[in-house]
This record gives sequence, structure tokens and C-alpha cells, in this order.
Amino acid sequence: MDTMDKQSPCIRGYRFGAVAAGIKRPGSDKLDLGLIVADTEAIAAGITTTNVVYAAPVTVTRQVLSVGRCRAVLINSGNANACTGQGGMHDALRMCSHSAELLEIAPDLVIPMSTGVIGAPMPMDRIMERIPEMVQGLDPNGALAVAKAMMTTDTREKLSLRTGINSTGPFSVLGMAKGSGMIAPRMATMLGVVLTDLRVPLPLLRDAVVCACHKSFNRITVDGDTSTNDTVVVLSGGAVDAPELGASIHDREAFAEALDAVCSDLARQIVADGEGATKLVEVLVRGVHNEEAAEILARTIAESPLVKTAFHGEDPNWGRILCAAGRSGVFFDTNRVDLYIGDVAVMKDGRPAEGDWETPASREMANREFRVTLDLKSGSAEAAFLTTDLSAEYVRINADYRS
Amino acid sequence: MDTMDKQSPCIRGYRFGAVAAGIKRPGSDKLDLGLIVADTEAIAAGITTTNVVYAAPVTVTRQVLSVGRCRAVLINSGNANACTGQGGMHDALRMCSHSAELLEIAPDLVIPMSTGVIGAPMPMDRIMERIPEMVQGLDPNGALAVAKAMMTTDTREKLSLRTGINSTGPFSVLGMAKGSGMIAPRMATMLGVVLTDLRVPLPLLRDAVVCACHKSFNRITVDGDTSTNDTVVVLSGGAVDAPELGASIHDREAFAEALDAVCSDLARQIVADGEGATKLVEVLVRGVHNEEAAEILARTIAESPLVKTAFHGEDPNWGRILCAAGRSGVFFDTNRVDLYIGDVAVMKDGRPAEGDWETPASREMANREFRVTLDLKSGSAEAAFLTTDLSAEYVRINADYRS
Repeated sequence: MDTMDKQSPCIRGYRFGAVAAGIKRPGSDKLDLGLIVADTEAIAAGITTTNVVYAAPVTVTRQVLSVGRCRAVLINSGNANACTGQGGMHDALRMCSHSAELLEIAPDLVIPMSTGVIGAPMPMDRIMERIPEMVQGLDPNGALAVAKAMMTTDTREKLSLRTGINSTGPFSVLGMAKGSGMIAPRMATMLGVVLTDLRVPLPLLRDAVVCACHKSFNRITVDGDTSTNDTVVVLSGGAVDAPELGASIHDREAFAEALDAVCSDLARQIVADGEGATKLVEVLVRGVHNEEAAEILARTIAESPLVKTAFHGEDPNWGRILCAAGRSGVFFDTNRVDLYIGDVAVMKDGRPAEGDWETPASREMANREFRVTLDLKSGSAEAAFLTTDLSAEYVRINADYRS
Repeated sequence: MDTMDKQSPCIRGYRFGAVAAGIKRPGSDKLDLGLIVADTEAIAAGITTTNVVYAAPVTVTRQVLSVGRCRAVLINSGNANACTGQGGMHDALRMCSHSAELLEIAPDLVIPMSTGVIGAPMPMDRIMERIPEMVQGLDPNGALAVAKAMMTTDTREKLSLRTGINSTGPFSVLGMAKGSGMIAPRMATMLGVVLTDLRVPLPLLRDAVVCACHKSFNRITVDGDTSTNDTVVVLSGGAVDAPELGASIHDREAFAEALDAVCSDLARQIVADGEGATKLVEVLVRGVHNEEAAEILARTIAESPLVKTAFHGEDPNWGRILCAAGRSGVFFDTNRVDLYIGDVAVMKDGRPAEGDWETPASREMANREFRVTLDLKSGSAEAAFLTTDLSAEYVRINADYRS
């Protein structure tokens, strides 16, 4: 247990607890069960997986979010509680109600989030046994421990804090997430929890969450998959005396900016920690007639195995990038296309650039992070996607875990 | 030159020639320019890439196919003549007209097909210089040589022959193709040419080609890419005395069956020879409410990097397969889903199967070829996709070619 870690950020109105419940492996001392509790009833909004196959905790989360009020978030790694039928639903509700009982709150104010193996029953005995200890250990300094308890194949915990000032005074937004790496032997999941000490009216919070997620978590890709458990939840106004976000445009913008920044930072951390990733690449598509088309183009390029292997090989292969754009379903005039790697123009007006662009472009790609820009010169909309390279290590992690 | 190879199949009404024109590499003796000539004006139909970015020869091919008459197909590997602007268009037309002149036919009866590096000008001097020799060497036994001349990273030539008998007597369908492997350093392309000695009326031929391609070339995936040059062309009735396919349903079905079989066989050869592929996997989705949905499901599973790495790892990971299906955009009732690896049920009614399914399922996956069946038990439509595993070797081929 390292809930007292000095690096852990705090946020007014929330306490945190985490324990090793042996969900990842019986008897292991790895943290795998975490709890976030608001001092008072928080306003909650979030997004959940679009996968037709979704886990029991996602069903419960959706019910809580439909009302929009929440006191606690209960998170476990090691078991996704997916494809577990009615028994899984029963287990998810039982975890919540046991926590609620000890916290003396209503059970329908608890959001459960699970990630890990799918198709296996939750080790309920071990979980139920450790919940009291976790509740007793709740601490304003425990955020780092909860971030650790969500981890699966993540190599590091992911936290992000932004502070701002509005007309009511200073405020904070604190987020934590786990990445979309595969959990040997089963499944990818992205989980995120973001907390703010401002009290944001529900309709406003819902809008802000959708906007923030759309440009962050929805614009990253490691392998293009959407898991059965993907969930991002934002809790707002955990403290009893939390200042309410009012009608001031300036105040609303300050909050939205902080929320966007936290979500984008977490999204970036997730990609950078992607399985087998050695590169973090921003694919920016600009000069497009509308943003939806720009996003489709950026996504298709960012998900292409051919493009991603070229990134891995540090190969300024404009052909693969252009080809991926061309099969995206978005029409564009190929004779207007410019393509940049970093600031190096490798293609102008649909033709390879003049002179030696290959050497400087390769040099740019030798960096751990770089940007690729496709400019269609046909409009003012743009969209950016964060992606990784595709390495042999990715294949090893996902294919050879048995060895 | 091995145009006289004894293994080469023949088909009435067509002659073949191939030369090493140094397109792949100056001075190389590798065949890279091929020619197929019909004895008389053939009826032609085909499909070309759906990529918004397409090569100059594709533009010419589309023009020829819009009329539907063809005497010759001119194919080169080593250079795709894509992203080459007006100069590339000029080159494609010049290759065709020079061949036509020597063959004493109209230039608009020649279909050009190119595959290879993109963005580089065609080495026209070397090509023009070798066309006369190729025309002089035309031979009914040269099909194998043309199949070799189309190859890029293919490790073997791909040919398929089917014969049938209808009311006019025996008939043949002969196909050749090159695969969708990457051409270091640039681009994937699938090219196919299918010849029949029956004279099939144009509307009928067009329908038959679309149907045959839909269930073969359009249902394979190595890395989910569609190149700038993908083309399949079918020529019909090359011989002066070619029997016409009439109104007999039986005759039409016999032809369609032979054409389907040749296209499916070539498609299978392409996947089996996919870059870095160590497995050939059929993904069959059945029990679906309509075929389009079945195809979307099968495609999403077949293209998932997570599923493909699990195939590589011989890991009966039903979670990844179900998860890919769930994010395909097709709705289904997860509580009805059965999943089989070979004949082994690994999932029944949306839950992991009882007993030890893991050992026999892993044993099944140790084979070089196996089938995965997802049964939604919600209808009578089905669709099958052929795919490969995703190996570290694939990454090596596509990322590390510089080393």
C-alpha cells in the first residue's frame, strides 16, 4: 500500500482508498481495488463503450449516469466482469451495495468500473473481504493509489491535474485513467475518472464531458479496438461548500478548458504507454470541408497498420498515408494535397516534393514524438488523432503471452 | 525467360508474352512486363480500386471497361504509375499505343495494369525498348510467365484454371493474380486477370464479375488496405470461333460457378501468400438477419489486429473475437451468440463453454489453416472472410525494409 505517497495530488471534496484484493492474482500484493468518495452528493456525467457487448458494471454505470448523481466510484482491475451473465450483474450490484452500506450512502449512488479478464466470475469473497479496510483507509492523499489500482498492462499510473481561477475563486480538475493495453490474456479497456471541486449543473456537465472526450479519448488509437468496459466518468462538486459554476461565459470557458486539458493529457499518456509503442504520433488533417470528414481521415490514417509500421520503421512513406486517406470514404481532390512530416513537406499538390525531403523527414521520424500533417487545402476544418507505431513488440505482447 | 515452362496452363483464344524490362531494377533479369492478347476482340468487364487516390493506368482501364471491348492487357510490376500527374497519364497511354501499333489493333482496346513503387516516373525508355520482343514472343503457353511478371513481394505466382461443359461443349476459365503484399518501399496492390473462352454478353459478364469478385477478392484481408491500383479484369471470348453463352440458365450457372471458383481460388492464394502470414483463417459469421450485416461482422473480426495476433499466438481468445464483433456497428443479442474454433464450441449463448474447450481449440489453431465460426442464431444470412494472422514478420517486412 502506498496511499500516502507524497506525489499524490489532492482535490477538495474527495477521498481515496485502494487495496490489494487478489483479483489480479490470489495472494498478490498488487493494488487492484480502488474507491473514490465525494464528501457530498456529486453531479456525475460520463460516456461508456459503444460496443454491443458490454460488461455488467457498464449497465450499472449507465443507470447511475442517467440520474446524474453519485457519491462513490468503485474500481477494480484484474477482472472485467464481462460475459458473466446474470451472476455478473448480481456481483456488480453486490460490490456497490456493500461499499454503500459501509459508507452509509444509498447504493444507487455508487458507480462500478471493472477491467481485466472477461468471462470469468468475480472473486467476490476476496473483494467483499477487503472493502471494509479500503473504506477505513480513505484519505485525501490517496489518488495515486487508486490510479495504480486501475492499472493492467499499463507500465505507469496516469494522473493529470489542472487548476484555474474563476469569479468564485480557484478551482481544480483532477483526472486519472488506465490505458487501452491488452490485459493478458484477454481484453483492452480504457477507464477514466475525472473530479472537479466546482459544482457544475448537470446539463452543462454532460455537454462539457461529451466535448472534452470527443477531442481526447475519442481521438486516440492503439489498435482501433473498443472494449466491453470502456468508461469515462466526471464527478463535479464533491465538497459540501463547493462553489457552483454559474452563468458567466468566462467561468464556463475556464472550466471547459481545464477539463479539456486534463482529458487530453490523460489521452496522451494512454497512447504514449500503448503496448509495444516506441513512437507517439499526432496525425493532423486540415484544410477539410468539415470536421467530421477531417476526423474520419485522421482516424483512418492513424489506424492503418501500414502507416503504423512505417512510423515504426521511421520511413517517410507518404504513399501509405495518402493511400489510407484515399480509402477513408471521404472524397478529396488528390491534386491539391500537401503532406508534412514535422515541418518537412514531403508532398506538394499531390506529387512528391522537389529536392531531398527524405533525409530531413527521416530525421524527424527518428524522434520519439512527431506530427504528420495532411492538408487538403479545401476548407477550414481540421482534426487531430494521436496514435502509436506498430512494433513487433506489440505482436509479441498480444500473441505470445503464453510463452 | 521461362514462357515455355511446361506447367503453364493454356486457354483457347489467348496468347501471352513476358519480358524483363528492368522496371523492378535496371539490368535485372526478373520478369516485370507482361502482355495478354486475345485472338479477336474480347468482351471485357472488371472492377477497379475504390480509393479516391488512383493511378493513371486505372483511369485508362476504366475508360476501356466503360465500352467493354478489349484485345490486350499490358501489365507491369515494379512501378505503379501512381501520383505521377499528367506525365504518368501520358506514359500509360504511350505504353498502350505502342503495343497496339505492333499488334495492329486499336489503342483503345488495350488495358494497362501497373503495380509497384508510387510517385516515381515510369522508366519509359526501357519499357518501350522491350515491348517489340514481348509481342514477338507471344505464345499460347505463356500464362505462367505473365503471372510471374505481375509478382512483387509475392513468393509464388498465382494461377487458377477451371473447366466445365455446357450445351455448346467444353469451356475454360483461367485466372492469374498478384497479391496484396507490400512492395518495399511503397504500396500494396492486388491485380487479377481472368480469361474465358466463352463469349459472354457484356451485361451478363458485368453482373458475373461483380458477383464473383464480391465473394472472393472483396472478402479477403491482409492488412485492410485498398491500393491506388487494385484492378480485376475479365476477358471473354478471345477465340474467333468462341461459342456464345446463350439464355440457358444451366449454361449461365455453369459459367458463373467456374468464374466464382477461379476468383475464390486466386483470393485464397493471395491470402495464403500474405506478407508474414503463417496462418490462413476463414472467419464465418452465420445466423445473421441479412448478408450485409454478416459481411460487416466478418470483416471487422478479420481485420482486427487483436484477433489476428491471437491467431498468431494460437490463442482461442473468444473475448477478442466477440469484442471485435461488438464494435462492428451491427446490433446483435449477445446472449444468443455461439462461437466455434474449428468444430470446438468455445462459447455458447454468450457465455464461455462448459468443460475444457481450451485444449482442443488451441490444437485446432495450431494448424496452418482453420475456421472460426460466429453464430448469432438470429437469421439465415452468412458471410465468410479469409484473413491471415498478424506476425512480427509482417511488422519486420513493412517497417524494417531499410535495414
